[in-house]
Amino acid sequence: METLFIDKKFAYDGSQLRSLFAYLDHGLLGPSIVAWEGGCNIPFTHMVDGEDLLAKAVIQGDEMVHFIIEVFDRDLFSGVALQRLFASICKDYLQTHTKALNGKSLYRDGDDIYLDDKKLSISIATKSPVSVMIHFAMNITNQGTPVSTLSLQDLKLETKTVAEDVMNLFRSEYTKIIEATQKVRPIP
Amino acid sequence: METLFIDKKFAYDGSQLRSLFAYLDHGLLGPSIVAWEGGCNIPFTHMVDGEDLLAKAVIQGDEMVHFIIEVFDRDLFSGVALQRLFASICKDYLQTHTKALNGKSLYRDGDDIYLDDKKLSISIATKSPVSVMIHFAMNITNQGTPVSTLSLQDLKLETKTVAEDVMNLFRSEYTKIIEATQKVRPIP
Amino acid sequence: METLFIDKKFAYDGSQLRSLFAYLDHGLLGPSIVAWEGGCNIPFTHMVDGEDLLAKAVIQGDEMVHFIIEVFDRDLFSGVALQRLFASICKDYLQTHTKALNGKSLYRDGDDIYLDDKKLSISIATKSPVSVMIHFAMNITNQGTPVSTLSLQDLKLETKTVAEDVMNLFRSEYTKIIEATQKVRPIP
Amino acid sequence: METLFIDKKFAYDGSQLRSLFAYLDHGLLGPSIVAWEGGCNIPFTHMVDGEDLLAKAVIQGDEMVHFIIEVFDRDLFSGVALQRLFASICKDYLQTHTKALNGKSLYRDGDDIYLDDKKLSISIATKSPVSVMIHFAMNITNQGTPVSTLSLQDLKLETKTVAEDVMNLFRSEYTKIIEATQKVRPIP
Amino acid sequence: METLFIDKKFAYDGSQLRSLFAYLDHGLLGPSIVAWEGGCNIPFTHMVDGEDLLAKAVIQGDEMVHFIIEVFDRDLFSGVALQRLFASICKDYLQTHTKALNGKSLYRDGDDIYLDDKKLSISIATKSPVSVMIHFAMNITNQGTPVSTLSLQDLKLETKTVAEDVMNLFRSEYTKIIEATQKVRPIP
Amino acid sequence: METLFIDKKFAYDGSQLRSLFAYLDHGLLGPSIVAWEGGCNIPFTHMVDGEDLLAKAVIQGDEMVHFIIEVFDRDLFSGVALQRLFASICKDYLQTHTKALNGKSLYRDGDDIYLDDKKLSISIATKSPVSVMIHFAMNITNQGTPVSTLSLQDLKLETKTVAEDVMNLFRSEYTKIIEATQKVRPIP
Repeated sequence: METLFIDKKFAYDGSQLRSLFAYLDHGLLGPSIVAWEGGCNIPFTHMVDGEDLLAKAVIQGDEMVHFIIEVFDRDLFSGVALQRLFASICKDYLQTHTKALNGKSLYRDGDDIYLDDKKLSISIATKSPVSVMIHFAMNITNQGTPVSTLSLQDLKLETKTVAEDVMNLFRSEYTKIIEATQKVRPIP
Repeated sequence: METLFIDKKFAYDGSQLRSLFAYLDHGLLGPSIVAWEGGCNIPFTHMVDGEDLLAKAVIQGDEMVHFIIEVFDRDLFSGVALQRLFASICKDYLQTHTKALNGKSLYRDGDDIYLDDKKLSISIATKSPVSVMIHFAMNITNQGTPVSTLSLQDLKLETKTVAEDVMNLFRSEYTKIIEATQKVRPIP
Repeated sequence: METLFIDKKFAYDGSQLRSLFAYLDHGLLGPSIVAWEGGCNIPFTHMVDGEDLLAKAVIQGDEMVHFIIEVFDRDLFSGVALQRLFASICKDYLQTHTKALNGKSLYRDGDDIYLDDKKLSISIATKSPVSVMIHFAMNITNQGTPVSTLSLQDLKLETKTVAEDVMNLFRSEYTKIIEATQKVRPIP
Repeated sequence: METLFIDKKFAYDGSQLRSLFAYLDHGLLGPSIVAWEGGCNIPFTHMVDGEDLLAKAVIQGDEMVHFIIEVFDRDLFSGVALQRLFASICKDYLQTHTKALNGKSLYRDGDDIYLDDKKLSISIATKSPVSVMIHFAMNITNQGTPVSTLSLQDLKLETKTVAEDVMNLFRSEYTKIIEATQKVRPIP
Repeated sequence: METLFIDKKFAYDGSQLRSLFAYLDHGLLGPSIVAWEGGCNIPFTHMVDGEDLLAKAVIQGDEMVHFIIEVFDRDLFSGVALQRLFASICKDYLQTHTKALNGKSLYRDGDDIYLDDKKLSISIATKSPVSVMIHFAMNITNQGTPVSTLSLQDLKLETKTVAEDVMNLFRSEYTKIIEATQKVRPIP
Repeated sequence: METLFIDKKFAYDGSQLRSLFAYLDHGLLGPSIVAWEGGCNIPFTHMVDGEDLLAKAVIQGDEMVHFIIEVFDRDLFSGVALQRLFASICKDYLQTHTKALNGKSLYRDGDDIYLDDKKLSISIATKSPVSVMIHFAMNITNQGTPVSTLSLQDLKLETKTVAEDVMNLFRSEYTKIIEATQKVRPIP
């Protein structure tokens, strides 16, 4: 799995969630996770979460750290399971790397990370004809978000370090999952 | 997903990791997670983890809480991802439900849960011709284990409550994963 | 499997055969079958049956009862097999619930239901990136159809009752098929 | 799909439900349906239906016509759907080819065919590592059956003719299903 | 597998690489390979090879023999493997059917055929929602190609004969591959 | 893909064609190709090629170079296609690396390599519950073979060099196939 932190800032508008984004825009071949900082504003035409579409949700933030994961040749169930694992990795990382929580605990509910009722992240996992893809983003600031949010600034953490660390943790998790499928005997 | 805590104690010897165990032995139809208490002693012929086979590992404990998960019609990659999610759910649950950690943090490494270098759990995910199956077990005591271990007794937690709670959490996670695959628009 | 009879009348024009139609337009999550009454007129751009496209077929009727079935995470072969089973269920239901046939027998040929050379139904099964989908429709009247047809009026049957009954029968069939995949031992 | 009526009589004991039975024992390559006449007695060790295993069912009959269907490279869901279609084809064929029913109707419930509470058939669909396989059998006589049964003798039908006809109908159904997956445009 | 040499000349512009091309434009149902002669000019919007897109490649030739292969219900890995086999079949055929090589050897590198550094062919394998498809083309002349090329004229071979022969060889290869999946016993 | 030439000589008796052979016996994790020298004698109970079973074939040779390929998470169709590609790679390699053919050409027919009617190789591709596996072997001598054979001695080639070279070529081919599935845009 290739990883890349893209140093240029740009907004996520949903158009990045298309197959081969990391390859065609950033030259990463194969399974990949990329990250960058930027605003978030997803027009209705690019929204893929049916729940958001039904709720006519507004999904936006002034500054977030975005992750796009692409894994080839897997079904959507696997993609959603990986999304939950990535959320879990982020939560555990943040919990152990900040002192700003004052003994409180972040928790994961499905693909979301919360502190009390403050939402840190947004995410969706979906399927292209050749891959499963995940968008996951965490607030860097609480500006411009339509709901009560938590941000990396609240946690006093530096975005790029967080992004690179969780990408490395996810790459390691992904590699070990693949290996675990290649060293087990089948059962009757 | 059906869940069941089996009140009868019996040892896990690897023979329980076969397709339809929950259905044929306990009447649970469809995807399921069952749990029970008992010793652990896996003879070489029932060992399916290639790494253990290569290492000629001894896998045993005097008293553990065992979980068997079975999910039909999925590939092994999905099975291993679910295994990691279950480990993550257990770790999070234990961390927030015990006061015996004194500010220390449990952590998950792949499918294992640790406190410092003390290992709480063992696990394997594998494939039958009709399903993927997971065995996951946590020490109830530290007696009879071949390595330095952590146990639910150390955490001062009651086994059956833990087992039923994490099974409910996993059922909820599984249901939401399935739903997440049924309400998302595909991408190009 | 969710079922719904939509009480509003509207024409089927092929645009309803898209993934998540039942979820996004009618709030049904997961595998589903929905039905409604309305005309049928499928412009060439929405036609998906290659045979119709080659034949430059005209597919229309003034009043039909339409069914849209969506099942996630299955291949097209399964979708076509389910389509045949649904046609079979409809045929059997109509045969045993009408007295208007005077001893004659309806028969199924692939996905079509006939009485002699009179065609009762049209159908197509196809694949979205996330699901397989089936459109199946039976004439309520014989008005506006381009070929010799049979209709529910000829059979003196009330449309909504028929629709709800066959949807319930299909839900039951689908549930039992799933269960049958979860209680059988594999063979060598 | 190859079809064969095996003229030699022999009992079905469950051992025939293994991959490549038609190829290794009768030289039929590829998807196939074979039929023969003989008794039925399935020892517990060859029983694959979990429901029968739980019920400690006795499955036997003195003379039945047996069918073994094998289709490669499909999942069990497809296999069970094909099993239901085969039961449906048999029921429709019998209904229209006998005069012995006196206006009564056979009906299909899942994979079984009944007249009132008399059971005509037994069936199971399962999975080998390389194929899905179906055993389906109808009573030729009512001798030796543990429950109230219907038989081809009751229907005054000649076994071999029935067997060859339903095999031809199934081959045609199977071919048309495959073709239907190869001439449809995908949808969004 | 159906094969067809289309006698009408027309240019390949990438639009032919869409599902059901052989069925909807030429009436071939099921897995197929078709061939025709014509120029090659692929606008950027029809280009599917990410490597070409990244390189802003110019893909053209004045006269080529084009092949479109479509196989249903397979993954892209299988499609790419078939593409390599087709390239291999073409290379072997040309090597043994021309005397113009003067003892030199053609070689295959992935999906390309070369003589020294002269490129004979272009190819891509991709995935539609219902099938995998391959475009493979060999130069008939060296006119209009942007790189150093080899052509069938250099090899003094008649295009239509070559095309029909390699299509027959590929059909035979495909048939034997399918058969090989239907006559082997599974292993533990 | 891992590759290994095993320096110890041992006979192939069919028992090596089981999942995880390279991992459990030689420590290679993941997709792999291993080779070794030794006799060949496959008892009936280990024979998996149905054609050989029907023909009651004798498969043996005094000294062959054996290859075992294992690829995880692929269907048998892919496995057979890879087998054909490996045969093709071996044939091309031998043709260009020997001077002993005196202008004659080796040819591949399915999974076999021939010179005129002399057979150089034997092969089978099959499926374990977790992988597809290929056995491919070429004669080192013509001693002990039941049919007219060709051997590496006839070609005056050194076995270990051949084995390592074709394993490297296959690894490269496999890697490029995987990459080709990860850089192509899907089509409609």
